[in-house]
Amino acid sequence: MDIRVDIERLKADIEALGLFGQDLKGGVSRPSFSRADLEAREWFKKRITEAGLAVRQDGAGNIFGRAGGPGRAVMAGSHIDTVINGGRFDGSVGVLAALECLRRFREEGVPLSKPLEVVSFTDEEGNLVGDFLGSRAFMGLLNEDEVRHGRTQFGPVLAEVLKGTEFTIDGILKAYELKPELEAYVELHIEQGPILETEEVPIGLVEAIAGKRYLWGSFTGNAAHAGTTPIELRQDAFLGLADFALKATRHVAAVHYGSMVTIGKVAVHPGAFSIVPGRAEFSLDFRSTSGETLRDLEKELSEIARDIASTRGLSFASKLMDATEPVKIPEKLLKLMEQECGTLGYPFLRLPSGAGHDAQILAGGCDSGMIFIPCLDGISHAPEEAIRWEDLEKGANLLLKTLIRLAG
Amino acid sequence: MDIRVDIERLKADIEALGLFGQDLKGGVSRPSFSRADLEAREWFKKRITEAGLAVRQDGAGNIFGRAGGPGRAVMAGSHIDTVINGGRFDGSVGVLAALECLRRFREEGVPLSKPLEVVSFTDEEGNLVGDFLGSRAFMGLLNEDEVRHGRTQFGPVLAEVLKGTEFTIDGILKAYELKPELEAYVELHIEQGPILETEEVPIGLVEAIAGKRYLWGSFTGNAAHAGTTPIELRQDAFLGLADFALKATRHVAAVHYGSMVTIGKVAVHPGAFSIVPGRAEFSLDFRSTSGETLRDLEKELSEIARDIASTRGLSFASKLMDATEPVKIPEKLLKLMEQECGTLGYPFLRLPSGAGHDAQILAGGCDSGMIFIPCLDGISHAPEEAIRWEDLEKGANLLLKTLIRLAG
Repeated sequence: MDIRVDIERLKADIEALGLFGQDLKGGVSRPSFSRADLEAREWFKKRITEAGLAVRQDGAGNIFGRAGGPGRAVMAGSHIDTVINGGRFDGSVGVLAALECLRRFREEGVPLSKPLEVVSFTDEEGNLVGDFLGSRAFMGLLNEDEVRHGRTQFGPVLAEVLKGTEFTIDGILKAYELKPELEAYVELHIEQGPILETEEVPIGLVEAIAGKRYLWGSFTGNAAHAGTTPIELRQDAFLGLADFALKATRHVAAVHYGSMVTIGKVAVHPGAFSIVPGRAEFSLDFRSTSGETLRDLEKELSEIARDIASTRGLSFASKLMDATEPVKIPEKLLKLMEQECGTLGYPFLRLPSGAGHDAQILAGGCDSGMIFIPCLDGISHAPEEAIRWEDLEKGANLLLKTLIRLAG
Repeated sequence: MDIRVDIERLKADIEALGLFGQDLKGGVSRPSFSRADLEAREWFKKRITEAGLAVRQDGAGNIFGRAGGPGRAVMAGSHIDTVINGGRFDGSVGVLAALECLRRFREEGVPLSKPLEVVSFTDEEGNLVGDFLGSRAFMGLLNEDEVRHGRTQFGPVLAEVLKGTEFTIDGILKAYELKPELEAYVELHIEQGPILETEEVPIGLVEAIAGKRYLWGSFTGNAAHAGTTPIELRQDAFLGLADFALKATRHVAAVHYGSMVTIGKVAVHPGAFSIVPGRAEFSLDFRSTSGETLRDLEKELSEIARDIASTRGLSFASKLMDATEPVKIPEKLLKLMEQECGTLGYPFLRLPSGAGHDAQILAGGCDSGMIFIPCLDGISHAPEEAIRWEDLEKGANLLLKTLIRLAG
């Protein structure tokens, strides 16, 4: 059937959702289970009901709207939580575009061969105890110890954050009991990078989602007086880190082109003008769409660090903080979406996703695909996050056509 | 006259003074005008009086004990304030050894040709508004604006810190009015570096005190998503800083051997695992015993930073936070102390001081010299700061002999 989304209605939904959690810096701060998020949830459930869909919520606070009867469900969605001082589009466009698709199916009386669900997953952004709390809970992939004892970025453990809400730790850990049988999951999302805009293409078909490793590393030397300790007698931990940052970046760019390595967080101790640093701690984030490359990088980056430590009289240590494996999008799903782009007359390109998404968690249980639309200047997780409505319209139409192919 | 200090009495004084401001981490926290410092001051004034000396205090809280009549004074001392969580010897040994010398003169009835003073200068450590508050005030070298408006490391301005004490900003600014005519100043101090201990020599005769520049610098690029921004499209401010740290250190070691450069404090923004740093701020401390080298380094390090910024698509900025000029110790004073080492049979070596001391401020108004004794493992400004009492005994005896030559 040749139907299209109503972009004006979708735009109005995005603008309405963007009001929940508006912050003083011009952005949106709506971490899961915050007051703003709890209000946004009620609004979203109301929109599902108004669309004539059956609303459901699991113990992790994942919200579903369902159309159609029994059978293996086709699901589309994303998340409505945001980082602190984030934007209005990351996550929200995927949830609300999926809702718009289901509304259009109902309005046009599209017959469904499979049940169709819109979903909003809790805390994709990892404000609480690691990324993808909701989709991991949904798939039964939570680390119980982390959920019970991990500190949230707000300080208290998750159980404290949940006080005064309808949610509990036990409920979160049992959320997977409500999971329906799944046929496929499709997620529309902003690219959060510069490629589609640079290439002037409105649609990105994600062919792989990068896996990543988060490490917390440290070089330890000896703190010393900056005026009295000759350079050649120093064990300057910060120079070890500086050396590592340059060599690690050079190595990834030269040997593993397309993979990423980032040192984003640095703490130098004791941290005074006139004291040679005795200790330099840092975050190390590396990503690749190849699991083999990730494992190579674990070894190679660690070797580079150890070599530097031994040359400079330092010691090196690191701790793995988080790890996700790369996911390949099934070729049949990509081909299906390519065909629909052709029918719709939309230019597209295939590209990897360097960012993580709920789709990679869902990929463990069903065919899982992603549609990217451009975001301006590649900016995301910031108040300046922006899209062109005509790009969203194209992305949502492709989602709609894809869902018809999968469940129509 | 062949007299010596009483090391047991000096040791008891050092141990007594070390009790003021003992902190929970096993060190001493006695910044000027803290409660611990105010109590230590009363103790010290009492010790001066008990020694039969005339006690005097100026508006900056510098404390003097005087022996002898009118004339140009010979002065010896240092400071009794400490850094937060510092040690028991930095500063204190110089003040209490000088007091011991004056006590011995009095006990032995050494005739004085010139008045002799022991001095303890306020806030040498710069906990309040820049290094050397007391000696700068004494010499009339304060920056009034900094004293009135500069923030102390404790947060409030100096006037707030002084509340509830007998001291005032106006009093500090007028302290120089009490300065006597000066003949010479001699300061005994721990080396705060590893050279004397490594060379197994008990006495260091300082031949020059390094001047220094403190800068606060920053590289600015663009914050970006660590997963979606290809390495070649990044403007990673931290990689700019890493590059600078290595090149600046290499440059100083290769071209200005003996000078020092240190990056001790680093702040990376926004400072998250998965965000490429948009801004990296850092302290830059460089020192040399040559004023010409200092001026060369100002130019050369800035050029290195600008080159890196332009290669990496970053911008670089820096602000001068503090500057002191190097000081040469007069050759006649060095020769005199060398002769006394010979008489006493003490091995010595000449060395530069990379750390700053009140002696460099006094050098603007009189012959100013310094005697170093070893500190264990070169450690200072830490609870582990330690000395050997036999080294202190030798240093104090040399101070005593030097003062006899200058004022006896």
